[in-house]
Amino acid sequence: MTDTDIATEERHRAKMAKRKAVQDAEVAKKTIEKGLLIVNTGPGKGKSTAAFGLALRMLGYGRRVGVVQFIKGAWHTGEKDAFAAFGDQVAWHTMGEGFTWETQDLKRDVAAAQAAWAKVLELMADPTISLLVLDELNIALRYDYLDLDSVVADLNGRRSELHVVVTGRNAKPALVEAADLVTEMGSVKHHFAAGVKAQRGIEF
Amino acid sequence: MTDTDIATEERHRAKMAKRKAVQDAEVAKKTIEKGLLIVNTGPGKGKSTAAFGLALRMLGYGRRVGVVQFIKGAWHTGEKDAFAAFGDQVAWHTMGEGFTWETQDLKRDVAAAQAAWAKVLELMADPTISLLVLDELNIALRYDYLDLDSVVADLNGRRSELHVVVTGRNAKPALVEAADLVTEMGSVKHHFAAGVKAQRGIEF
Repeated sequence: MTDTDIATEERHRAKMAKRKAVQDAEVAKKTIEKGLLIVNTGPGKGKSTAAFGLALRMLGYGRRVGVVQFIKGAWHTGEKDAFAAFGDQVAWHTMGEGFTWETQDLKRDVAAAQAAWAKVLELMADPTISLLVLDELNIALRYDYLDLDSVVADLNGRRSELHVVVTGRNAKPALVEAADLVTEMGSVKHHFAAGVKAQRGIEF
Repeated sequence: MTDTDIATEERHRAKMAKRKAVQDAEVAKKTIEKGLLIVNTGPGKGKSTAAFGLALRMLGYGRRVGVVQFIKGAWHTGEKDAFAAFGDQVAWHTMGEGFTWETQDLKRDVAAAQAAWAKVLELMADPTISLLVLDELNIALRYDYLDLDSVVADLNGRRSELHVVVTGRNAKPALVEAADLVTEMGSVKHHFAAGVKAQRGIEF
């Protein structure tokens, strides 16, 4: 190794040692443990997929997960089938009707959303559930299928150790306000714009 | 039902019927099928988690998935354990060293990244793999552990039906240029700022 190599290595080491010290100090400041209200929103991809990835992680620790889907459709059948490998560890409920522009029936959509919320309350009360995924709840809220204030009050009143993930575009400000963690998925580049179709295993 | 209710329902139906027509026309325009190069980047959460969620979906369809982790650490042990339920359907390789500010050893980091890339080339050549997750590859590229041009050339030269997901902050422009789908995870609100610590099943 030349002197220059040694100097480069040493600079790298010193820089990273400093970074580690900052990192460790940051970690030490965080002491609270609590069930989080997580919101994945925005126009980009990955909102539901990240929620299901989080569910997978919980399953890896032997915990139970509940899923309530507020919008039915061809989507997420792959995940649903994959979760079957975990048997009773996953309580999966597809409660909503199709996308609202498919059903074109407001009353049916409202009734389906209300039945879905009743299921959410049931799962929130079940102490064996560690994480609850409320898939596309934001869409049900956006179209006023559910009362926003009641939903937020119910979420705020959940068991203190229960993690909840809400997905869907256009999260309501009151929900963002109530949440602990909000991520906005932004679309930088999308293959649909290049004429690529929805493919099995990627979009559904 | 009052006349007002009926009018509201009818307006909703007409609006949604119009939306469905637009939606259907959009879908009809998309005809290409191809293996996608997907990049999940940005400072927000969900980059790796969404990649693992996509892997889960592929597993649900009975397909095989490869995972190469460029940064070793306590992270993703939950997912790794969960994927064990799928046996040989998942080829999981943790190849990198810890975060660079943990190892503080540039030469070791470079060697680990290069060994990881050799594993990527091996998995890219395996026709039984449908999706390859290159977890935190962007970090290895950011610290120049790997040559960007070679990595992009190798990715562009992959089998035409292979989907690849690259994760990590600060995706390089050349990688974004080569990608079909790029999502930027933005942090709107984060519980670490409120003193909440990293919790099992959520952060790791």
